[in-house]
Amino acid sequence: SFRLEWISEGNKSTQYQQDVVTFESGNISTPTCKNKQIILVWDSPPQCVCILTKPNCKRVHDLCKEMIVWLHSVSLSIYVEPRVRREMLADDLSMTFLHTWDSDEELCFLHNKIDLIVTLGGDGTVLWAASLFRGPVPPVVSFAMGSLGFMTPFQSESYRECLLSVMKGPAYITIRHRLHCRIIRHSSSSKSRKKQAGEEVYIVLNEVAIDRGMSSFLTNLECYCDNIFVTNVQGDGLILSTPSGSTAYSLSAGGSMVHPQVAAMLFTPICPHSLSFRPLILPEHVTLRVQVPEKSRGDAWVSFDGRERLQLGCGDALVCHLSSWPVPTACTLESTNAFLEGVKEGLYWNMRKLQGGKDIRLNI
Amino acid sequence: SFRLEWISEGNKSTQYQQDVVTFESGNISTPTCKNKQIILVWDSPPQCVCILTKPNCKRVHDLCKEMIVWLHSVSLSIYVEPRVRREMLADDLSMTFLHTWDSDEELCFLHNKIDLIVTLGGDGTVLWAASLFRGPVPPVVSFAMGSLGFMTPFQSESYRECLLSVMKGPAYITIRHRLHCRIIRHSSSSKSRKKQAGEEVYIVLNEVAIDRGMSSFLTNLECYCDNIFVTNVQGDGLILSTPSGSTAYSLSAGGSMVHPQVAAMLFTPICPHSLSFRPLILPEHVTLRVQVPEKSRGDAWVSFDGRERLQLGCGDALVCHLSSWPVPTACTLESTNAFLEGVKEGLYWNMRKLQGGKDIRLNI
Amino acid sequence: SFRLEWISEGNKSTQYQQDVVTFESGNISTPTCKNKQIILVWDSPPQCVCILTKPNCKRVHDLCKEMIVWLHSVSLSIYVEPRVRREMLADDLSMTFLHTWDSDEELCFLHNKIDLIVTLGGDGTVLWAASLFRGPVPPVVSFAMGSLGFMTPFQSESYRECLLSVMKGPAYITIRHRLHCRIIRHSSSSKSRKKQAGEEVYIVLNEVAIDRGMSSFLTNLECYCDNIFVTNVQGDGLILSTPSGSTAYSLSAGGSMVHPQVAAMLFTPICPHSLSFRPLILPEHVTLRVQVPEKSRGDAWVSFDGRERLQLGCGDALVCHLSSWPVPTACTLESTNAFLEGVKEGLYWNMRKLQGGKDIRLNI
Amino acid sequence: SFRLEWISEGNKSTQYQQDVVTFESGNISTPTCKNKQIILVWDSPPQCVCILTKPNCKRVHDLCKEMIVWLHSVSLSIYVEPRVRREMLADDLSMTFLHTWDSDEELCFLHNKIDLIVTLGGDGTVLWAASLFRGPVPPVVSFAMGSLGFMTPFQSESYRECLLSVMKGPAYITIRHRLHCRIIRHSSSSKSRKKQAGEEVYIVLNEVAIDRGMSSFLTNLECYCDNIFVTNVQGDGLILSTPSGSTAYSLSAGGSMVHPQVAAMLFTPICPHSLSFRPLILPEHVTLRVQVPEKSRGDAWVSFDGRERLQLGCGDALVCHLSSWPVPTACTLESTNAFLEGVKEGLYWNMRKLQGGKDIRLNI
Repeated sequence: SFRLEWISEGNKSTQYQQDVVTFESGNISTPTCKNKQIILVWDSPPQCVCILTKPNCKRVHDLCKEMIVWLHSVSLSIYVEPRVRREMLADDLSMTFLHTWDSDEELCFLHNKIDLIVTLGGDGTVLWAASLFRGPVPPVVSFAMGSLGFMTPFQSESYRECLLSVMKGPAYITIRHRLHCRIIRHSSSSKSRKKQAGEEVYIVLNEVAIDRGMSSFLTNLECYCDNIFVTNVQGDGLILSTPSGSTAYSLSAGGSMVHPQVAAMLFTPICPHSLSFRPLILPEHVTLRVQVPEKSRGDAWVSFDGRERLQLGCGDALVCHLSSWPVPTACTLESTNAFLEGVKEGLYWNMRKLQGGKDIRLNI
Repeated sequence: SFRLEWISEGNKSTQYQQDVVTFESGNISTPTCKNKQIILVWDSPPQCVCILTKPNCKRVHDLCKEMIVWLHSVSLSIYVEPRVRREMLADDLSMTFLHTWDSDEELCFLHNKIDLIVTLGGDGTVLWAASLFRGPVPPVVSFAMGSLGFMTPFQSESYRECLLSVMKGPAYITIRHRLHCRIIRHSSSSKSRKKQAGEEVYIVLNEVAIDRGMSSFLTNLECYCDNIFVTNVQGDGLILSTPSGSTAYSLSAGGSMVHPQVAAMLFTPICPHSLSFRPLILPEHVTLRVQVPEKSRGDAWVSFDGRERLQLGCGDALVCHLSSWPVPTACTLESTNAFLEGVKEGLYWNMRKLQGGKDIRLNI
Repeated sequence: SFRLEWISEGNKSTQYQQDVVTFESGNISTPTCKNKQIILVWDSPPQCVCILTKPNCKRVHDLCKEMIVWLHSVSLSIYVEPRVRREMLADDLSMTFLHTWDSDEELCFLHNKIDLIVTLGGDGTVLWAASLFRGPVPPVVSFAMGSLGFMTPFQSESYRECLLSVMKGPAYITIRHRLHCRIIRHSSSSKSRKKQAGEEVYIVLNEVAIDRGMSSFLTNLECYCDNIFVTNVQGDGLILSTPSGSTAYSLSAGGSMVHPQVAAMLFTPICPHSLSFRPLILPEHVTLRVQVPEKSRGDAWVSFDGRERLQLGCGDALVCHLSSWPVPTACTLESTNAFLEGVKEGLYWNMRKLQGGKDIRLNI
Repeated sequence: SFRLEWISEGNKSTQYQQDVVTFESGNISTPTCKNKQIILVWDSPPQCVCILTKPNCKRVHDLCKEMIVWLHSVSLSIYVEPRVRREMLADDLSMTFLHTWDSDEELCFLHNKIDLIVTLGGDGTVLWAASLFRGPVPPVVSFAMGSLGFMTPFQSESYRECLLSVMKGPAYITIRHRLHCRIIRHSSSSKSRKKQAGEEVYIVLNEVAIDRGMSSFLTNLECYCDNIFVTNVQGDGLILSTPSGSTAYSLSAGGSMVHPQVAAMLFTPICPHSLSFRPLILPEHVTLRVQVPEKSRGDAWVSFDGRERLQLGCGDALVCHLSSWPVPTACTLESTNAFLEGVKEGLYWNMRKLQGGKDIRLNI
């Protein structure tokens, strides 16, 4: 078992709560500004690791096998996906020690058994790992198979040193918030669609996007915040993004880059027709509802972390709020500078031609 | 004396701390998503009000006098600025009951005596009020003298009903974070400037901006985050803004609009020469240092909430972090929708021509 | 028959050519800066009017009938679309005087018979009218049926005065450039698609857009200018727009607003993944080729003036240049101010809250 | 003596006029779309070269001296600035063959004597060269002393081959439009400023910018187009730019990148307070007037190509239109691709991290 702690200038804090504001009489203050970094501390050594991998990639398969052999040799129990267990057993019949799950119900309780998640792939593999754990998520260590990404800060070449270090602790952690998304079908709408029974819930780590699909008509989405009407979005669509997703689709649509640990939701229109539609950043506690008007000329389409396209008919709605269960991801650097390195290395942020002390604009 | 509480869907919470993340074993969760709104509750009735006013405005002067008479009649003690006390006594010799302060030292402890601050003017008067209280700030009620602003949500016409309601409580509160700014003079720089002794500290509610003043050379500012080099800003300058300031200068420079209660710092370049310089939103706990290079071709200028221009010489630096003491401001609506109403009413956000259900872009 | 002339400060110019640059020895000058406005002058009175209408709208139908009766009474010959001729004859058997066309070949030569085009509808009807005349286009007078649009500056209420005035001349004209778009199928691609024989040519007045349709993969379009490789567009897609189209889709994607008479082509990415992808404005004489890579993971979709969606497979390309035949549209004001009124009235350009001489940003 | 010609697909055109629109009866067409590139052809060999240099740079001085010796040896007459003539004579008393000018009047007629201008320095030196020739400008060949710039496409290392090639002809030319700027003082304003007699005229190749200088108040500039009121600019200021200047200050303020040969004027606000203020691109024939309101709270400052700061008082105005005399600059490539190479090499336009055929956004 583990716990997370805030550290500040070298000192650990026994207080494991972040108090944004305390209200002493006549003295409203924000003690957390002293806290700098969350660290992972093991109360007892981790005993069970879950390895999740990008499919259809020989290099990933080989690394996964090597990692399994090593982790098994140091007496850790290991979970893999059903597909991976089959693949590994096809290679090596002795790998019956591999655990997996048989059903979605089993998956729901897996976080109680697993101490650490390891992903092998790119940011997409992390998104997919996060989608498996819809409730609490154990700490995640992500290895890049090629160039490093925002969510894959560890080089796969040195996976042993890296995993030993994290499993010993303490390790730097970035807390990544997620969005809890629910589709609510309009009464008439669901009828015509042969019973899509029950609620449809999706948990995203980057963003949920609503767009016009192949329709040549602009979307016209009604947006409500905590059940109060906010605005109509007219354009190609709308992105509701986490801060982690601020460097993905929201960025392409003109949103700001937000450190993943900021507790907020980004509201970013896609090619809005209005000149005055600037992105918004809303506080952590809001619930957004985005609804296709009952008399809309076209359907809309919703996608979750870039996958799982669903059609929204007239009157259907998406309801979205911050999930109660963020994803704790291990990082190599202190969290803020890990983010800043990412925007510089990964997105070429503020990169420009330099000229020995000269004025770049005028080049006199 | 008073306290602040979170309420959620009608229920008050006795817990007056905001726990962004709790780390139960194997269950990292964010309970605060349930909290929706901070409210002001009086443990004992407020007894002392401080009225702060926009100068050189007859309407403000008259309203201030009327308010003084009324508050005095209901047995509240009243503080005003030294200038206002002189003006009031010149009008009416009996107003000797007005309190004021004589020195900056006295001002430092004033928050212990004052239960409520009232401002009469525009958003600029709120900025100025915030600048007087550099430590803890009592709750602020702001009356607009003309059209409503982001920080002046109350109509002066109905000031009595409004003040009675707030002084009875509970009242909706928006917590507005501030920035603590310090100027650090370079050794050689300070010499040449006849000893600007000691530290120079400024507290801003909107933003601190560094620009090139009258220089025709682009600024070239070195930026450090938690003492690690981040980037050079080359352009007209740089804005470090609070979320409250996100609808002011940062917005003009292309920043996103951020709800004032989000705990974050905005890093927004002014006309950057680089194509790839997008605004950043950093977490609450960072310390930014912005430094004029030792071999800079021109000086830079820094201004605090649009006032107090100071020159920065070669090697001088600005160091900035979130202040520990935010400003609690009363609002008429629930905080999120107060903000959204503000961006719609005050900035014409997403306003566009409507055409009876038609496609606005193509107008077929 | 008619001619167009430049006028400047009240004086007409007999010179009907616009010489952007003349090169006298040692004196490179641009005489056209003196020219201010193009006007339509009739050499002989117009004798034939073509009325084009928005379908499925009772108000448009009724106005069209009324206009036909009136134009017939003043001895003009009248062309309408085949559909409209059938509708009118169903209403009134005596309307056999209405001309129409039977085939696309006939349509190709129609501009030789028609002196004036009248549209009844919105900007979409003007787009559609322009698509019918792929070669030379007679002058167009466009009546708005509701609120005025960029291309529909005339109020339908006063259509008689307006048409009499234009048919007498002189009338203010805005020359609107168009794009000539050609789809080139890749050899392997066309095979798999059962022979889409011959060339596919489209003429657009606003824009041609390429997007990723329902694919969750970013488009990756190879762009060539005059057969030299320029860049890869990675994102939601790419818009090639005329200046007329600069206030339509290109604007939503972040492009500048360009006066319709500027001879140029806009190159505007849709949600590009790159931070440094700013819109380009290219000179009139370029030929752009946009190609789906031969090994693209997904198809792309192209649409012309928001209609006519076509699929582009691997290796297929769109080739685009300014059409030789612009659309001369009548305007009520001098052309530049007609455009500026349009962006203010139609798009609320630079609209903001005013406060009696006060600083809007700070609202002190 | 020389002339310029349009070439198209290898064929030269004897027609040296660019007819944007010709109006044959019933056939409004734009023949110029066939023209691709302007070339410089010498009717008689060039005989006189003017060398203009960046001051205070040893490398430039040495190269200039070497170039003078060589050009003199091939019997060309040579003009330099008075300062440079003095410097060269100080080095080498035999250089009395160098021509220069003594007065501004002489400078006004210099374009009749000079066949070719050579600049040694950066883009700033080209700006300065352009400012010397306020009327017709001979062709300009610009050598970069360090990295290549938008207007300095030639490497100084190979200056002989390059100059021989240009002086033989034909050479590729980009026509760069300029702005003619005039300051008009308000009657009361000029009185208070001790008679700044007569008109103040400036010719800029990049841009004229009006800003608020050190004032903490936003500028509030009244803008008129062809004497009709357009809008108030409220913010840090306004840039009126040529297409050449579109990659300089206007770009930093969010303007689009426009090919230098497009005949247009860019209207780009600097940090406007309004959400809906998007840059405009106006046609070549407009005259813009930007006026400080008579009751403005602060003065404004105007600068020309980043230099020559002037104060504008209440009621003072800047009047601006395209100059009749553009600057013909030699380029190494065909003009459009020279521009596109410039935005890629000089501004890192659309540069981003590539990952072997993978989706950059999701990095799956």
